[in-house]
Amino acid sequence: MGSSMPSPKYLTGDVSAINEFIDRFDVFLLDCDGVIWSGDHVFEGVVETLELLRSRGKKTVFVTNNSTKSRQEYLKKFTGLGIPSNVEEIFGSAYSSSIYISRILKLAPPKNKVFVIGEAGIEHELKSEGISFIGGTDPAYRRDITPEDFKGLADGSLLDPEVGCVLAGLDFHINYLKLSHALQYLRRGAVFLATNVDSTFPMSHGFFPGAGGISMPLVYSTGQKPVALGKPSQAMMDAVEGKFQLDRERTCMVGDRLDTDIKFGIDGKLGGTLAVLTGVSKKEQWEATDAVAVPAYYVDKLSDLYAAAARQ
Amino acid sequence: MGSSMPSPKYLTGDVSAINEFIDRFDVFLLDCDGVIWSGDHVFEGVVETLELLRSRGKKTVFVTNNSTKSRQEYLKKFTGLGIPSNVEEIFGSAYSSSIYISRILKLAPPKNKVFVIGEAGIEHELKSEGISFIGGTDPAYRRDITPEDFKGLADGSLLDPEVGCVLAGLDFHINYLKLSHALQYLRRGAVFLATNVDSTFPMSHGFFPGAGGISMPLVYSTGQKPVALGKPSQAMMDAVEGKFQLDRERTCMVGDRLDTDIKFGIDGKLGGTLAVLTGVSKKEQWEATDAVAVPAYYVDKLSDLYAAAARQ
Repeated sequence: MGSSMPSPKYLTGDVSAINEFIDRFDVFLLDCDGVIWSGDHVFEGVVETLELLRSRGKKTVFVTNNSTKSRQEYLKKFTGLGIPSNVEEIFGSAYSSSIYISRILKLAPPKNKVFVIGEAGIEHELKSEGISFIGGTDPAYRRDITPEDFKGLADGSLLDPEVGCVLAGLDFHINYLKLSHALQYLRRGAVFLATNVDSTFPMSHGFFPGAGGISMPLVYSTGQKPVALGKPSQAMMDAVEGKFQLDRERTCMVGDRLDTDIKFGIDGKLGGTLAVLTGVSKKEQWEATDAVAVPAYYVDKLSDLYAAAARQ
Repeated sequence: MGSSMPSPKYLTGDVSAINEFIDRFDVFLLDCDGVIWSGDHVFEGVVETLELLRSRGKKTVFVTNNSTKSRQEYLKKFTGLGIPSNVEEIFGSAYSSSIYISRILKLAPPKNKVFVIGEAGIEHELKSEGISFIGGTDPAYRRDITPEDFKGLADGSLLDPEVGCVLAGLDFHINYLKLSHALQYLRRGAVFLATNVDSTFPMSHGFFPGAGGISMPLVYSTGQKPVALGKPSQAMMDAVEGKFQLDRERTCMVGDRLDTDIKFGIDGKLGGTLAVLTGVSKKEQWEATDAVAVPAYYVDKLSDLYAAAARQ
């Protein structure tokens, strides 16, 4: 770590430092996987910690790169896990991508359709913005590639001439047929977007291929990189700010990953960043000289902030 | 192109130059896709050209990165397309990978099993070298991932403790379940091999995701690069040389790709390299100052060499 870079302040167990930390912010942007839960397991004390923050007048916003769920589906997950929330405080990369397509990309006819690699969450959010799309969870694409596909994709007869954009997110049903369609659209000039480029997807206390791995075969075969809409992309920060009218100086990003969450907060010039050690990144990573991002604060786990309640 | 780098000699239409070229070599290593055929379409005049070379006492060896077929299956393809050949002159990346595993890697029990991502060609060649493997075309892996898979892969209970190597090749049945298995084995220390890392797979006069795209999600989620056994890897050249006892100075590599074929021949210090323009690479690519490799000779198509017969 360079000498100009202050060490992150460790808050766990230090009640007065925790209270000072909380008082510095009005808004907490919270990553979900690795912070609130791992897969379907909610970390202990998280519900109480969120309630504590809200009881002190703080706004909580869940900012997640997972594109497999729409905001509505996320809300169901929150409710099912006993975490009070509402759709308005949920911000996923599928939503962020849809906003980007409808309000920034503004695809003009006749090339205004999106070819989707991903799960239902992306489709729901595209629909909510009135964007037409093909691919996604359509069973027509969940099958083996055939000699007729090779022929029709190569000569273009099986391609939809209205597709002007390929959007790739985490897809548990990724296959060669979908990748082949996407490759042909990209070779014919479609805009290349990714909901996010996370290298791994945390699940069941393990790591699985992330959304970035899904778009990598396309990056490798086209030589093009997608515009990524998830953290740490500032397109997502702009969308969050636009929606919540937040004061960046009074906002703190909370996450487990240096390369997405903490970098997102630092690049966005937020007042603070808080790393938790319940997910991907370890302390050694920000102590390394080539650290991708160094948080301003850290705790062992999010619920360590709950200790602040002791002094109330 | 640097001033020290001579321009490739263009042979098309120049009968005496073609005859001189042919006389310089005893062995021609030939790439298949984009040189001999594209998919199931044999380029015109190729059969006659191969016969011409053989009639002049030249040895022809087919060196291909395509791992989806075994040598036996390749022979069937050659025969079906009317190209006389035999198993001994076919050298594929699946065979090259199997040789590497059995004779160089020499996996020791109890970690001597290979997890395969790829098609039957790899399986056949692994069997021919007596290497045990799982994955590949096994229908048990050709399905959607389930919550039980996530759990069992994360805790390791669904993993085979004997797997010591992951071998990834082109797989038309690639899916999230296979990638997830491979990722867990790699995270637990398995050796990472790829039959080849071609960025695209030429088929039906079009381009599809290549074997490199199949291993890319694993590269991206592990941060590891595989040892690639196809061209331009010199592991493959060593295997070819070991088998055919060739004199490198009297050997010419013929191919359509600068980044695999031509580089393979140059790195292998062969006496010559011949580029054909019926496949991936275009003339502009070796004329660029940052060309990955520059051939010694080029023709529009392989059968242009057949013009040499005019002077016989």
